Amino acid sequence: MSAEIVSTGTELLLGHTLNTNAQYIAERLAALGVYCYYQTTVGDNADRIGQVIENALNRADIVITTGGLGPTMDDLTKEVVADLFGLPMEMHPDHLAKIEAFFQRRGRKMPENNKKQAMLPAGSQAIPNHLGTAPGVIVEQDDKVVILLPGPPFEMRPMFEETVIPYLAAKTKINPGVLHSRTLKVVGPGESVIENRLRDLLTVQSNPTIALLAKTAEVHVRLTARARTETEAAALMGELEAEIRQRLHPYVYGVDEESLASVVGALLNERNLKLAIAESCTGGYIAHQITNVPGSSDYFLLGVASYANSAKENVLAVDEETLRTYGAVSPETALAMARGVRRLAGSDIAAAVTGIAGPGGGTEEKPVGLVYAAFVAGDKEEVEKLQLFGDRVTIKEKTTYAVLNRLRVYLTEEARP
Amino acid sequence: MSAEIVSTGTELLLGHTLNTNAQYIAERLAALGVYCYYQTTVGDNADRIGQVIENALNRADIVITTGGLGPTMDDLTKEVVADLFGLPMEMHPDHLAKIEAFFQRRGRKMPENNKKQAMLPAGSQAIPNHLGTAPGVIVEQDDKVVILLPGPPFEMRPMFEETVIPYLAAKTKINPGVLHSRTLKVVGPGESVIENRLRDLLTVQSNPTIALLAKTAEVHVRLTARARTETEAAALMGELEAEIRQRLHPYVYGVDEESLASVVGALLNERNLKLAIAESCTGGYIAHQITNVPGSSDYFLLGVASYANSAKENVLAVDEETLRTYGAVSPETALAMARGVRRLAGSDIAAAVTGIAGPGGGTEEKPVGLVYAAFVAGDKEEVEKLQLFGDRVTIKEKTTYAVLNRLRVYLTEEARP
Repeated sequence: MSAEIVSTGTELLLGHTLNTNAQYIAERLAALGVYCYYQTTVGDNADRIGQVIENALNRADIVITTGGLGPTMDDLTKEVVADLFGLPMEMHPDHLAKIEAFFQRRGRKMPENNKKQAMLPAGSQAIPNHLGTAPGVIVEQDDKVVILLPGPPFEMRPMFEETVIPYLAAKTKINPGVLHSRTLKVVGPGESVIENRLRDLLTVQSNPTIALLAKTAEVHVRLTARARTETEAAALMGELEAEIRQRLHPYVYGVDEESLASVVGALLNERNLKLAIAESCTGGYIAHQITNVPGSSDYFLLGVASYANSAKENVLAVDEETLRTYGAVSPETALAMARGVRRLAGSDIAAAVTGIAGPGGGTEEKPVGLVYAAFVAGDKEEVEKLQLFGDRVTIKEKTTYAVLNRLRVYLTEEARP
Repeated sequence: MSAEIVSTGTELLLGHTLNTNAQYIAERLAALGVYCYYQTTVGDNADRIGQVIENALNRADIVITTGGLGPTMDDLTKEVVADLFGLPMEMHPDHLAKIEAFFQRRGRKMPENNKKQAMLPAGSQAIPNHLGTAPGVIVEQDDKVVILLPGPPFEMRPMFEETVIPYLAAKTKINPGVLHSRTLKVVGPGESVIENRLRDLLTVQSNPTIALLAKTAEVHVRLTARARTETEAAALMGELEAEIRQRLHPYVYGVDEESLASVVGALLNERNLKLAIAESCTGGYIAHQITNVPGSSDYFLLGVASYANSAKENVLAVDEETLRTYGAVSPETALAMARGVRRLAGSDIAAAVTGIAGPGGGTEEKPVGLVYAAFVAGDKEEVEKLQLFGDRVTIKEKTTYAVLNRLRVYLTEEARP
């Protein structure tokens, strides 16, 4: 069973709107085990919409469209599909009543042009829309299906969950449980290093499949197993996961929804250790990532974004002498910041970073992307020198990952209870 | 002159990745006056990529692809296009040297599989990539052009700006000025309030067109004018922009690439005022936004993410009495935090927030989303109570917008020199 996604809307072609619908539907289809080989975006033009849907129906069993169900003149998808299947449009008084009620609840009279939203291709099935005026439509003919959904994501998503998923599950007779995915999250080595270590597995992959996905500062290894039962899928997956974890050790930090910050948080909680952070070049981003984790107030005491030298001196007690002799971007200052914030917060562990995030401020000796990351825990004191590349926000993000990963490695390997 | 966008990558078909590249390129093509009627997404499969590019070339003059230029086995786009045009692949020693230098700068040896990134279709033009190892490619044959770009947005975007836009402008002989866009950025009222205020303009819009785009904590109003000359477009746009600004006053904070933080930064620089921030529930996010702006070290002195009560007492000198009597989430604590961080940093202005970001920690009296935001500047001292809705990150983001907007209004209206 295969499907295609067709997104309609001139606002997508002009780049005014980001197409989040295609991603959402693609993710759901994959979870259902429905194959999807193409996504197409087309403007509000009847001929072109018709060609795209026809072309998609030639390749796939199911076509899912978003957009073009509104009350305006350039909302055309329903009419195009009716035409394609040779079906007349029929007025549905029950839907008309719902649309009128929708406006009434908002204290408004239904505009005349909303009437057309109650017209459906003959013999089609309506998809209820509780948050808007446009019902969706399922049109079946021979072995082919077209599912029409509205464009606004907050209307489309609940309709997909409530009606489309059960419809597809029944249609495909696929037990959604048979497609099992698991994402291993890797921090440290780049995509090509990981590919080299997994080369033979990637070459012979069939079930489970393996996909590598590079993010700004981490790589995701996604395993997807097809099986008749959950137990079987888990067994298939477990063996491969163990092999990959061993080959990538110690760089797999977590799975699925875990983030590097949530893993560090769980380890801090387990070890009953408290953390403080001092940031110069990252300017609060490390603290932001740590505090994105619910419950982080249990272990995170203090973050100081000491941007000015005066703040480094007055808040973190970095020696004016240190700053003058070595500069704000130096291993000495990074270490003094980490010691300072640990003392100030009374934490067990502290990390500090100072560097040049750019785009200005770099010199030959201290170029943009140069970062010193200091780490203090127990009697341990160390400073790491990083040379990072990318724009300002990328350098902030890569620095943050390096710091969180140092914390993770320490908490996993050295602070084992 | 027309173009099509082809995005390749199985991660897009599986919904693992949001396709921001298609939007970015679509927006740029529209700005250049290049028509674009279709966008297609296809997986890492040579046959299907070939069919999609061939189909696109039958409809359009220019096809722009993203993805598939990496070093791995499933990076296929370049090879597919060479095949389609009947061109052999050639090794370019100068590009190989650049790729080797890229790894050398990072203190690493180039993996063997990166070599293939230096292979280009015969007679094609390379697009330099300063932030990654994959050069882009422009392949011309007869009247048709294929432009291949890498998938990572931070590599693709500068390549598009630096090489593709000048290429397209020369190629199309179109004055890019004929399609003129401008985005007004609005903070405060929601999308439907804005729609109501602009209803008549939205109804009769033709040239310029008006599009509303709701973000988490702001709304973008995008105007696009078509005209023969820049002057004519600017005149068309200017009139409508003035009308909209008046209707939405004082909520339009900036235009185009400006962010709320960059506008606040420019105002602080102009007024020669220094800023400090104390954060509890936002945990560093306000400081992160402020320091995303290049040059923010000129006016941002200090951010304190005082997550623990002990940090509020020891770092910001909030009275233990205040915390005990009113609690950490209270107007009294917010104000004490703002006073404390201003004193500590020696800044002119300070803001502080304390609240409950959730999902846990809420009570009937102090529910999730309750935030107190304090603001001190000169003799002015005030605390605002906010009740926000959404998940943890959304509440952090909305709080950050409220604080930055308060700073903007103060700097615009009250701190006028």
